[in-house]
Amino acid sequence: MWNMKQLAYGALARRANQIKDELRQGVRKPYKEVIDVFQGDLHGAGMKPLTFVRQVLAACVYPPLINSNNLPLDVRQRAQKELGRCVGGSVGSYSAAAGIPEIVHSISEFIKRRDGGIPSHPENIYISPGSQWSISNILNVLVNREASPRTGVLIPVPCYNITVLSITQLGAVTVPYYLSEEQAWALQVEELQRALESAKGVCSPVALYVINPGNPAGYVQSQKSVQEVIRFAWEKRLFLLVDELYQDCVYGENCEFVSYKRTLSEMGPPFSGTVELASFHSVSKGFLGECGLRAGYVELVNLDPAVMKHIHTIFSKDSCAPVLGQIALDLMTDPPKPGDPSYPLYKQVGPENCTLVINSLPGFSCPPLEGGLFAFPRLNLTPKAVQKAKVTAEMQEDPDTFYCTRLLEEGGVFTSPGWEYGQKEGTYHIRFCIAAPQDIMEELLRRLSSFHMTFMKDFS
Amino acid sequence: MWNMKQLAYGALARRANQIKDELRQGVRKPYKEVIDVFQGDLHGAGMKPLTFVRQVLAACVYPPLINSNNLPLDVRQRAQKELGRCVGGSVGSYSAAAGIPEIVHSISEFIKRRDGGIPSHPENIYISPGSQWSISNILNVLVNREASPRTGVLIPVPCYNITVLSITQLGAVTVPYYLSEEQAWALQVEELQRALESAKGVCSPVALYVINPGNPAGYVQSQKSVQEVIRFAWEKRLFLLVDELYQDCVYGENCEFVSYKRTLSEMGPPFSGTVELASFHSVSKGFLGECGLRAGYVELVNLDPAVMKHIHTIFSKDSCAPVLGQIALDLMTDPPKPGDPSYPLYKQVGPENCTLVINSLPGFSCPPLEGGLFAFPRLNLTPKAVQKAKVTAEMQEDPDTFYCTRLLEEGGVFTSPGWEYGQKEGTYHIRFCIAAPQDIMEELLRRLSSFHMTFMKDFS
Ligand SMILES: Cc1ncc(COP(=O)(O)O)c(C=O)c1O
Ligand SMILES: Cc1ncc(COP(=O)(O)O)c(C=O)c1O
Repeated sequence: MWNMKQLAYGALARRANQIKDELRQGVRKPYKEVIDVFQGDLHGAGMKPLTFVRQVLAACVYPPLINSNNLPLDVRQRAQKELGRCVGGSVGSYSAAAGIPEIVHSISEFIKRRDGGIPSHPENIYISPGSQWSISNILNVLVNREASPRTGVLIPVPCYNITVLSITQLGAVTVPYYLSEEQAWALQVEELQRALESAKGVCSPVALYVINPGNPAGYVQSQKSVQEVIRFAWEKRLFLLVDELYQDCVYGENCEFVSYKRTLSEMGPPFSGTVELASFHSVSKGFLGECGLRAGYVELVNLDPAVMKHIHTIFSKDSCAPVLGQIALDLMTDPPKPGDPSYPLYKQVGPENCTLVINSLPGFSCPPLEGGLFAFPRLNLTPKAVQKAKVTAEMQEDPDTFYCTRLLEEGGVFTSPGWEYGQKEGTYHIRFCIAAPQDIMEELLRRLSSFHMTFMKDFS
Repeated sequence: MWNMKQLAYGALARRANQIKDELRQGVRKPYKEVIDVFQGDLHGAGMKPLTFVRQVLAACVYPPLINSNNLPLDVRQRAQKELGRCVGGSVGSYSAAAGIPEIVHSISEFIKRRDGGIPSHPENIYISPGSQWSISNILNVLVNREASPRTGVLIPVPCYNITVLSITQLGAVTVPYYLSEEQAWALQVEELQRALESAKGVCSPVALYVINPGNPAGYVQSQKSVQEVIRFAWEKRLFLLVDELYQDCVYGENCEFVSYKRTLSEMGPPFSGTVELASFHSVSKGFLGECGLRAGYVELVNLDPAVMKHIHTIFSKDSCAPVLGQIALDLMTDPPKPGDPSYPLYKQVGPENCTLVINSLPGFSCPPLEGGLFAFPRLNLTPKAVQKAKVTAEMQEDPDTFYCTRLLEEGGVFTSPGWEYGQKEGTYHIRFCIAAPQDIMEELLRRLSSFHMTFMKDFS
């Protein structure tokens, strides 16, 4: 799977870069610049970073700014405070492997507030260089490479594909459970059950990976659904890997993010004290969108002390997460409060990021978007169109890759094909980030509609 | 080995932190603050970061600074240039997995200049979040977990201990070769030969790890010695893992850093086209000392294309290295030139970092320091002192751990015991970073001498 993905991504990304270069060199195209909504990269998609975050980081990097009157007082005070937590007062020092202790503490306070007072313990929290790092390293602990049959991990379809890569790289087997597109990508326990049965004789499943809110599909699980998943994990003794990166990106009507940790705790015994859980979060998404800083955290619940010790060793081996990323985590989990000079600067960009941009596109079908940063509309191609796309496409590539390639070439919009995330046989999707600024989103939709009309005409 | 190390490090570090807290709370001690020379952490040890580097990074983080007249023109231009290389013009975007292409290119130019014009190819260079990350991930490619007998890696004794941890975590076996303390820690081919023989029946060695300049011992290999090692690797078909993080820290008389890559290339066929080599470097050491930014690179030479592809996949799995760290790599490998406004600011701190601080300490013996950031003097304890230390120490810990603990308690100097890096049976060492500013180093030596006298008196 990965090799193919590599090719597709490689080819599309290379072509996108070429086109960008050509445009810079004055080559004429039907568009003046490429709209890059391929990744969930907010700044790449044109969002402005939060002023407060960037000011604090700048003052930490170059401390003479702390004495300058050009920055708001609370920014300068905050930078001073963060530097006081760094070894030698410099962001250039290593921190403790698990992260700067005060920041780990502030993360635990954030979790506690978020979860209505349910305690969170700093010693269960590890900061890492991006959450992808911690996802693959926790997987590393769960997967026994010598096991026969091999270790299995249940994954949703569609699924964030880098996690799939991490699982297969470790020599484990992915066991797909299909989200129900017809029911707005709902996660159904019967389907988990079916997936688990399907693993019999193939591998030995030890963990269940959940993404909530979703990526690539933009669903938000209800608390009832979360409870069902927890009960299932408890019954089947599965370790719960919950990717909650998009917890701040919820905008669907009547949708609310409720964490697995909170739900687990509220369910009480026997669940609350036994189900093993790892919850991931990051500065890459949410309202910060700071992917390039590389910092995330994992909170671990109900793990055996011996396993925790092993995890500690693993999290020590590459030394610490980038200190500036750690500080951004602190700003995310302990933000300015109303009344602070920077509070308006902080809120300024936030809400837009998570605005629902569009639901129905011509020729596409898409359940209402509830959360996350992506639209994953279904591309309704007639069998004839599919056939024609297959034949026309070089190397017999998937019809959705073909669609994305043409959309890039002709429409100047850089998206990704659904098969990279997994999709039901015979269905096609495209994924794009919906967090670009309003004007860019409008332009994107204009280009998409117009391209789509031509495409449907050409291939029908 | 690691578990013990954990304990020792954990206990010493915890105690160092406690003491720091006690001092802050006004508890009276024979010293006013702890001198922390435990890690090779320049800023932690009191060095100031380079102004040019910090100014550029601050302007990249907070671009309005690019328009401010408070920063030198070349800083602002450089920041502009670096942002032009970031997706969406923001350090908050993901970069390509191997690193920002222009920065990878500038690293290859740096290597070429360093190596007297021998070409370096960008496609063989990968940027990672710290060099430790790339060391453990290249090891991951070399180690076959299913192999029987297990995969072996030759390591020097003494050795930077995190690499030892990475090797054992992967299920591989370390095969120690002893550096000759009597000959200023020279690496002798006969000893490599002996080590390789010793592995027979135990494991199957595939790689040879070399640290040059050294850590913890402060040697610099001559080019003749490098040639011998390359010839040995060629004969025995060993992959060369060369840790060249301290390449800018050479200060011994008649010492010069000559890279393995250059030497290999100059040796010509059959060596130059066959010996597989990975060379590591980082912004953590050298004159930048920016450990907290987490960025390093590896250059790979003579690798099979199939292996390179595998490495590409591995380096993609945690997405990219921190973008600010990548920019720091660019500033390191493409620094201001004489005549640029920031050239003086850039050079200001450099040389001091690598000054030889002291050679002979009372009661210690230490070959002349040639390079690197550490002193690793031998602690000459009489057998009686060893015995007494062992008996007095709780839990029968090693005499050198005992020594370091007392030095911390009574002298307020935080160092680490030699056994953590490996040492010949019956010998004892301590390691400390010599890159602290002049005044701190002088105070350190005063405290060390005075503590040492008392210790020797108490335990004789
Ligand atoms: C669902 C999900 N998990 C994890 C990640 C990794 O994020 P990071 O490593 O930047 O924290 C992403 C990034 O797009 C994601 O979408
Ligand atoms: C010899 C050696 N190699 C590798 C490293 C890791 O450096 P980093 O991961 O900070 O680049 C260190 C750090 O002290 C070191 O001394």
